[in-house]
Amino acid sequence: MSSFRVAVLASGAGTNLQAILDQVHGRNGIEVVAVGSDKPAAPALERAADAGIETATFASQRFADRGARDLALADWLTEREVDLVVLAGYMQLLSRDFVRRFENRIVNVHPALLPSFPGLDAIGRALEHGVWVTGVTVHFVDEGMDSGPILLQRPVPVPPDRNREALEAEIHRIEHLLLPEGIRLIAAGRARVDESNPRRVRIDP
Amino acid sequence: MSSFRVAVLASGAGTNLQAILDQVHGRNGIEVVAVGSDKPAAPALERAADAGIETATFASQRFADRGARDLALADWLTEREVDLVVLAGYMQLLSRDFVRRFENRIVNVHPALLPSFPGLDAIGRALEHGVWVTGVTVHFVDEGMDSGPILLQRPVPVPPDRNREALEAEIHRIEHLLLPEGIRLIAAGRARVDESNPRRVRIDP
Repeated sequence: MSSFRVAVLASGAGTNLQAILDQVHGRNGIEVVAVGSDKPAAPALERAADAGIETATFASQRFADRGARDLALADWLTEREVDLVVLAGYMQLLSRDFVRRFENRIVNVHPALLPSFPGLDAIGRALEHGVWVTGVTVHFVDEGMDSGPILLQRPVPVPPDRNREALEAEIHRIEHLLLPEGIRLIAAGRARVDESNPRRVRIDP
Repeated sequence: MSSFRVAVLASGAGTNLQAILDQVHGRNGIEVVAVGSDKPAAPALERAADAGIETATFASQRFADRGARDLALADWLTEREVDLVVLAGYMQLLSRDFVRRFENRIVNVHPALLPSFPGLDAIGRALEHGVWVTGVTVHFVDEGMDSGPILLQRPVPVPPDRNREALEAEIHRIEHLLLPEGIRLIAAGRARVDESNPRRVRIDP
């Protein structure tokens, strides 16, 4: 059986990438074959190199515009025959053409229970709003901001003292479980966008 | 010690009212002293009468406008020296003057994890959106639609088959726990809107 080829895009520390490398890479036929970043100094690239995975940087300033950057990125991924593109702390909004080219084959992890708190600083905004329950969402990526069909969600309680560091630590811990789980479900063919209702994800038992 | 006097407003079956009657009425100094409705035929009124609680109906068609209706309702509540107004399935948006007159003394229960899915049919819209976690929110009422400071929240998982009846039953079960708990916290002086940040509710341990 041929492997299920995963690319990961990351802008930062790469802790979600590390969770993927530790939990799904090289298991059940899943291989992380490419790690891309918009930031040449992203520690995520080092983690990938340490694991022997090919990396590339697509920094915005090297391209005329976002469309040109995403076209180069998409071509790089296509050459590597990627089955799934995983956004793991990737801080760039992907262009419409990129999303269409990998339709229903891009997933993102978001540190809130969408549709609450899409966009930047979801944890800070949840605390500011005064919620007592937030969480983590893994979703397919569409052309909107964190608006695509939801694959997995898990709630995280806000600590009684609303301590941000404690909440962030717990949300990241759940991200590191939920994103690998989402990749495993898709690779196993058990999760897909419902053709009869593209807002919904079907998950087979 | 004088009792903590609660009014409940309800438009429908009154199951949340019943939970309040069963769990907090007559305990810890809390008394439900008035039950109001916009619907003369609301079964909630029967439940109140069965419990020996004074009731009144404020049907919209009896008043020139919402302001006049809410003024009569507010006067009726003031005469009864109500400490807290609980919206328990009350399907009317309260006027600004009403909300200001009972500022930070009105609570509502909403069948979603606000700020997700404010307004009508929160359960149906959560299912349509494809979330896997929804829940219940008890919040103070401000002049917006389900936008006031959050007192309590509890998550409820969406069943794998997305069965609406099962989800509704579980959400109602949680409502019947969370709304009485919110009333107990306020009556005990342990929960209040944070004066330094009116979006947030402070809860003492």
